[in-house]
Amino acid sequence: MITLATDFGSPYPAAMKGVIRRETDAEMIDVAHDLPRGDPRAAAFWLRFVLPEFPPAVHCAVVDPGVGTDRAAVAVRAGDHVIVAPDNGLALPPARALAASSGTAASERASADVDVFEVAVDDPASATFHGRDVFAPTAARIHEALEPRRIADSVDATATADALAAMPSLTRTDEHVGLVFPEPAIDDASTAVGEVLVVDDFGNAITNVPGSFVRDGDRVRVNGESVPVGETFASVPRGDRLVTVGSHGYVECDVNDGRGDEAFGLSVGDEARISIER
Amino acid sequence: MITLATDFGSPYPAAMKGVIRRETDAEMIDVAHDLPRGDPRAAAFWLRFVLPEFPPAVHCAVVDPGVGTDRAAVAVRAGDHVIVAPDNGLALPPARALAASSGTAASERASADVDVFEVAVDDPASATFHGRDVFAPTAARIHEALEPRRIADSVDATATADALAAMPSLTRTDEHVGLVFPEPAIDDASTAVGEVLVVDDFGNAITNVPGSFVRDGDRVRVNGESVPVGETFASVPRGDRLVTVGSHGYVECDVNDGRGDEAFGLSVGDEARISIER
Amino acid sequence: MITLATDFGSPYPAAMKGVIRRETDAEMIDVAHDLPRGDPRAAAFWLRFVLPEFPPAVHCAVVDPGVGTDRAAVAVRAGDHVIVAPDNGLALPPARALAASSGTAASERASADVDVFEVAVDDPASATFHGRDVFAPTAARIHEALEPRRIADSVDATATADALAAMPSLTRTDEHVGLVFPEPAIDDASTAVGEVLVVDDFGNAITNVPGSFVRDGDRVRVNGESVPVGETFASVPRGDRLVTVGSHGYVECDVNDGRGDEAFGLSVGDEARISIER
Repeated sequence: MITLATDFGSPYPAAMKGVIRRETDAEMIDVAHDLPRGDPRAAAFWLRFVLPEFPPAVHCAVVDPGVGTDRAAVAVRAGDHVIVAPDNGLALPPARALAASSGTAASERASADVDVFEVAVDDPASATFHGRDVFAPTAARIHEALEPRRIADSVDATATADALAAMPSLTRTDEHVGLVFPEPAIDDASTAVGEVLVVDDFGNAITNVPGSFVRDGDRVRVNGESVPVGETFASVPRGDRLVTVGSHGYVECDVNDGRGDEAFGLSVGDEARISIER
Repeated sequence: MITLATDFGSPYPAAMKGVIRRETDAEMIDVAHDLPRGDPRAAAFWLRFVLPEFPPAVHCAVVDPGVGTDRAAVAVRAGDHVIVAPDNGLALPPARALAASSGTAASERASADVDVFEVAVDDPASATFHGRDVFAPTAARIHEALEPRRIADSVDATATADALAAMPSLTRTDEHVGLVFPEPAIDDASTAVGEVLVVDDFGNAITNVPGSFVRDGDRVRVNGESVPVGETFASVPRGDRLVTVGSHGYVECDVNDGRGDEAFGLSVGDEARISIER
Repeated sequence: MITLATDFGSPYPAAMKGVIRRETDAEMIDVAHDLPRGDPRAAAFWLRFVLPEFPPAVHCAVVDPGVGTDRAAVAVRAGDHVIVAPDNGLALPPARALAASSGTAASERASADVDVFEVAVDDPASATFHGRDVFAPTAARIHEALEPRRIADSVDATATADALAAMPSLTRTDEHVGLVFPEPAIDDASTAVGEVLVVDDFGNAITNVPGSFVRDGDRVRVNGESVPVGETFASVPRGDRLVTVGSHGYVECDVNDGRGDEAFGLSVGDEARISIER
């Protein structure tokens, strides 16, 4: 299985699918092609949320504002998953989440860590469409290298790492671009100063403040405005604002049947100061 | 085969696909993920239109403004199809359409009716993402329960009903939320007072007035404004308004190469008074 | 494999998938369902770009402003691909590109040319949804007619042409609607007067001026305004305008991390006068 996630819109991802289908019969599943444009951090947020739901797969993730520069391409192994991506850090947060969720035996070192490989890139046909010319064929080839092991049912993190290490086009590396989500400043037990990481299609403004910071039934101030904390949107009347803990585990600023970003005046990168009223 | 229809936008449906793929190799086909947000009636309209085109399948349909409340989850059998959905009525109109289109022998009672089962729900991981935590795994499990029968080629409505009845997590129920589309008031043979049910991506304003009410070549007044009835958009010049009978069988208010909703000033829920000029 | 490309938005393409799945188990891959509405020329541009990436397939392409009129439906063979489309010319440019890219032996006449077949159309169920009632079932039937040859591994352009010619519903024809992209006027070695063919999702304004007209490092005037020619977006600071040669081989007017159409004031069909400053 190969999943595809890009900020390419339409119809560019179809060219990637054609290229992949020339190399492998692997199932292709779209994760998203409308990831926030040119924002590797937002891509990392969404992939960290979505990819751990999948069984072992090769994930081709291309949000690549540096396309055509000398940034490298990487393949990141995490558990028995592999993420193929530009070396701009977007693969690391989802890789760590995959490693954490797929660890089985505590003794199995490989399953707890991630391996980063640099991809040797042939001169691509274009300077602007590496999704088609670099990342799609790399994902297809890695899938083909891994698949015989999967069919033999011997797949595990170590076997995956070994298969990647045996590919001539991959070289293990410690030099790669990292990406860590900003940590909120927790002033005291009652105030967290975080920021908005992403806004989802519902208009929910998702912050980096961990969900454990609030409790159902609290009231909190979000940048000074008092709203209830609810477990579900329906805990407040339609059109009212609230704070919930989303399925990704973070505090988000919402409206029941409306857009939280507009009602709270919050955009990606804005400060979100959450104070508990107790 | 499992079809997926939600109002989730992107990338939430990908999390559902990951969950399903952990449980089954069933083909997954997207019906839509941009159904009108929080509007089970519009979802019911579209699914009633689309699902009868499919061969027997499990359809996972999630438009769920009540997520996190105590609304139940249901599995509705219709013919040898099953719709998994929140119990807000959205499954009933498409289920009735599936039952009507898949009935074979008049003597086979099961094929003419629908069966509604309540789904026993484990405590979901989230209060806000039952698409991933409740509906996707339920659809996958139902698919797995039905699939051996399909492979044996013995599938029919009765076998499907029996397979569902045998699942411990399903309980047949008569208590469920219904949904009936509003009927237009037909004052006399020449005036129907209906409403706009949905507006499609082309801007066609689709009413609940049955297509049989108008005839090709008629002129009608729509809320007082006189337009021709045409079989095709091209029956009027580009940019002109007309009334057609859409492929769903209802009167719709259109513009050739333009948006009918804007030209007629019609939105979802608005009254549409159609009078025949003869 | 059947690819699907339409301007139908959502959820109409799902009805086509249901119809196809009733007839064949062929894999279905979405190319795009948001092609510029009612614009066969733009559809032809995108399909010419995307389809040659695919291995042999049946491509169902429906951008059909003449739906319901007496325009014909065609199946166009190119190499061992087939495009099923309304007879409005949209299939010809991608078919020529497929023929050029799949030609193997120079002696094999069939691989260099394209064959156009008119599709005999049963009275369709609707006058407005031939995607579902005409093109999807035709694509499915053609796929089924070709597939045994593919499995026998004897597929090539001649075999594909023969299989189509043997289908009772197809009749070879020389009378069909053509479509040729407008050629730019190249006044002299330093000035090309072209037009904007399409604007992509990034806002890149793609012209019909061939990429060979400019060189990396040139400066050019676009409708009088001086900008650099760069190989990649990142060759200019963020927010700056530039001209690049896109992966489709044409000159496009871009902004690094922004929308070229807005910055240059260019829309589809606008004149783009490109002068080299040397």
